[in-house]
Amino acid sequence: MDINILTEKLNHTLSTLRYGEQPSELYEPIRYIMALGGKRIRPMLVLLSAKMFDDDIEKALLPAAGVEVFHNFTLMHDDIMDKAPLRRGQKTVHEKWNANIAILSGDVMLVRAYQLMMQVEPDKLAKVLELFSKTAAEVCEGQQLDMNFEQRTEVSIPEYIQMITLKTAVLLGFSLELGAILQGAPDADAEHLKAFGDNIGIAFQLRDDLLDVFGDKDKFGKQVGGDILSDKKTFLMLTALEQANPEQLQTIVSWRDKTEETIAGAKVQAITRIYDELNIRQQTEQQIDLYFKEALRHLDAIALPDKRKATIRGLAFQLMERDS
Amino acid sequence: MDINILTEKLNHTLSTLRYGEQPSELYEPIRYIMALGGKRIRPMLVLLSAKMFDDDIEKALLPAAGVEVFHNFTLMHDDIMDKAPLRRGQKTVHEKWNANIAILSGDVMLVRAYQLMMQVEPDKLAKVLELFSKTAAEVCEGQQLDMNFEQRTEVSIPEYIQMITLKTAVLLGFSLELGAILQGAPDADAEHLKAFGDNIGIAFQLRDDLLDVFGDKDKFGKQVGGDILSDKKTFLMLTALEQANPEQLQTIVSWRDKTEETIAGAKVQAITRIYDELNIRQQTEQQIDLYFKEALRHLDAIALPDKRKATIRGLAFQLMERDS
Repeated sequence: MDINILTEKLNHTLSTLRYGEQPSELYEPIRYIMALGGKRIRPMLVLLSAKMFDDDIEKALLPAAGVEVFHNFTLMHDDIMDKAPLRRGQKTVHEKWNANIAILSGDVMLVRAYQLMMQVEPDKLAKVLELFSKTAAEVCEGQQLDMNFEQRTEVSIPEYIQMITLKTAVLLGFSLELGAILQGAPDADAEHLKAFGDNIGIAFQLRDDLLDVFGDKDKFGKQVGGDILSDKKTFLMLTALEQANPEQLQTIVSWRDKTEETIAGAKVQAITRIYDELNIRQQTEQQIDLYFKEALRHLDAIALPDKRKATIRGLAFQLMERDS
Repeated sequence: MDINILTEKLNHTLSTLRYGEQPSELYEPIRYIMALGGKRIRPMLVLLSAKMFDDDIEKALLPAAGVEVFHNFTLMHDDIMDKAPLRRGQKTVHEKWNANIAILSGDVMLVRAYQLMMQVEPDKLAKVLELFSKTAAEVCEGQQLDMNFEQRTEVSIPEYIQMITLKTAVLLGFSLELGAILQGAPDADAEHLKAFGDNIGIAFQLRDDLLDVFGDKDKFGKQVGGDILSDKKTFLMLTALEQANPEQLQTIVSWRDKTEETIAGAKVQAITRIYDELNIRQQTEQQIDLYFKEALRHLDAIALPDKRKATIRGLAFQLMERDS
């Protein structure tokens, strides 16, 4: 099957990357965070997109690795900013070493990401680097917006969608676009893949918000209601705030900043009840469906036989955990 | 005169750069640090090098600006790591805003530096970006070594030279090399300019160490002996530590970690006396002279009439404050 072979090639490429040796304080954290693993979704999207246009995806391997190095650079710096103690069950870099080392190792990772992204055919170099740079700046903008929203009392739904678009979706879109560009696909097809990725990314993030409240605890692998407990301004919460009657609003506000372990269950239950009263689950599912359908519309518009699109289409459904 | 016209063109270019607008927390710090000024030595080296080979330096302006944006990115992140309260007499970005904003604004600055560095002719893009990326990683390595040295008790002179080479010199070397490459200069000439810049950079940093102790207070603009007071492992101190007799060594060690304002004068006087006893000033001047002469040897080797090299040669002497 396509995906297994590509995964093997990607893992082999990632395992052969050399970031540098001395001083070890600079390079060891890079090897550490890259070894933590993760689903490698972004580089896989590069390869799957590339494979749509040409079965020979060798030339996409290093740029795909560049996307993964870039993604891990953002994780290393975001973890400092978010004061996160753990990443994939292991200590974050700033906890295992210190914040200065996490800053500087991250900086070098961004440089290494560029160096990998430069491993493309000369006539594609300018375009790839322009799009990569644009995307990289957008991801930073998304992180800044996310931090801003934590400090604000009111955030609108469009603002929230813009934030998750920048912080999460555009890198998925770029990954798919990159694969197409590297194989010399027509501009229109590359743009459709970009739009497909952006929309899938938004749908995926909204689904993440939804599963945090309504997900299967064992399947999801996170504490159910974690976003509620930490007063996170998710799509569900922002929608509830917009639609709540005065009494519901008062209930939501009264639970804010209450993070004690002992009342966790009661808080999640109280907020979930309001979500139920307001049909937040159904509304979120509708939104996810809208973005998912828009994504598929762009996939359909690509000028290739359906057979060539089957794997990516399948992956999209899989990411959404949908059968059809 | 060459330099005035180039300065004007450079300042105009820098004033027209647009980094981004929203979110303002991300882009305002970039405008702030770029407006703090500074001597703009690095982009001027790009332009002066370019002008050696062709009087039309228009195509070097944006890459030159890229070098300055990169340099200011390193300052923004270094200031967080060094917990520096002031930069050029004004609050540092992490003091005026906060560390998270300084991390993320710096990240975007590195991306913007790449975007400016990409504004070169297509056939030069790969080479310019490869050298820029190599240099960028080296500058990070130099900063990490500098932080490591603060924690270590013993640092050898060669290790110190390697650190200042990476942290300071290679960016000067790259700036000069870049100007030559952009004008299509022969590889050998570009490499000689790189070596000229690296050596001038080392000489300049050693001179900085020297002036901190033996400089004219009014002319230098810094507190004389600041490095001594903060126990900085400069070329002077490391040389003294290598050559001190047991008595002198004990005196140096006895002053360590004594940073009280009231005994500042006595500390500077005591350490300076040991420097005098060991001829540290003369030894440092000899080292500076060695690197300066090596730099000039590379400038001489460039296949251009002396007239074409006069401005850069004059600047080198000026940076060293030497008449001939």
